[in-house]
Amino acid sequence: MYNHATKNYQCPICLAVKGIENEHTMIKQDDIFYRDDLVMALINFKFVGNNPGHVIVAPLKHYENLYDLPEKEAMRIMKIAKEVSIALKKSRNCDGVMILQNNEPASEQHAFHYHMHLFSRFENGKLHENISNFRVSEAKERKVFSKAMKEYFKNDKRNMEG
Amino acid sequence: MYNHATKNYQCPICLAVKGIENEHTMIKQDDIFYRDDLVMALINFKFVGNNPGHVIVAPLKHYENLYDLPEKEAMRIMKIAKEVSIALKKSRNCDGVMILQNNEPASEQHAFHYHMHLFSRFENGKLHENISNFRVSEAKERKVFSKAMKEYFKNDKRNMEG
Repeated sequence: MYNHATKNYQCPICLAVKGIENEHTMIKQDDIFYRDDLVMALINFKFVGNNPGHVIVAPLKHYENLYDLPEKEAMRIMKIAKEVSIALKKSRNCDGVMILQNNEPASEQHAFHYHMHLFSRFENGKLHENISNFRVSEAKERKVFSKAMKEYFKNDKRNMEG
Repeated sequence: MYNHATKNYQCPICLAVKGIENEHTMIKQDDIFYRDDLVMALINFKFVGNNPGHVIVAPLKHYENLYDLPEKEAMRIMKIAKEVSIALKKSRNCDGVMILQNNEPASEQHAFHYHMHLFSRFENGKLHENISNFRVSEAKERKVFSKAMKEYFKNDKRNMEG
C-alpha cells in the first residue's frame, strides 16, 4: 500500500538479488557481504557526508516499504541489523550505530524496495546535517568495507549471542 | 555491551513501565497508547522541529541498546513498528514514515534504554535539518496524539494483515 514505483520500475535491488550488474543498478555483487534465504546486507554505493561505507539490509523479495513488509522478512531484517550493528562496532571502532529507514519519497526513500540503513556513528560526525550530501562511490572504495564485513561475518558471527 | 548508563541511572523508560510519574521521567502514563507483554509505544515528550507527536517503541525490560536487545523483544518491536507506521499513515494523513534508532551518545541516544523513533514525514518537512531542534511539549499536547493512536489501535488493528 502507498506505493510509488511505476509499473515498469526497474528495481535496482531486485537486479542485485538476481546477480545482475547493469545500467539500472549501481549495486555491484562485491558490495553484498551477507545473504541468506530471506535478506541480504551490502555496502551502499552512496557515501554520505564524511561517513563512507554505510550498510543496507534488504529483503530478497520485492516489497516497496515497511507497510508491505511481511513479518517473516521483518523479523530476519531486525536480527541481521543487530548483527551488523555489532559488526560495525567491532570492525570499525565507531562510537555508535544509527538505524534509518525511510518510507515514501517524503521520507527520502529513493529505491522503491524496502531497505534499512545502518550508519556507524562518530563523535561530532554531523550525520544528519549531511544526510542529503552524498557522492556516488567507486566500486573499489566499497570493496574495502565489504571485505571487512565479509571477514567479520565469516569469523565472528558464530561467537555472538541470540 | 558498550553501555553508557551509570550505575545509579534512573531510567525514565523503566519508571514509565512501572507506572511511575516523577521528576526522573518526562513520560506521562497518558502518553502510552499501546502495551503488550514485551513492548510499549508512546508519544515522545520531545517535539522535534515542526514535527510534533512522534512515536517511540521500547521494550518493557531494560536493555540499553540494539547490541543488547534480545531477539524476542527485537521481533516484537519490528512488528509493532510496522503497525505504528500504518497507524501514522491512516490517522495523520502523512506523506511518509521514517524510523530512526540511535545507539550510544555519538548517535544522539539520550535515554539509555533501547527505543525506536517513528516520525510521520511530510513533503518539505526538513526533519533532518531540525533533528536536534526540539522542545519539551506539554502533557495535554501529547494527549491529542496518543488519543488518536489509542483509537486506531482499538478499532483498526484487527483489520490489518500479518
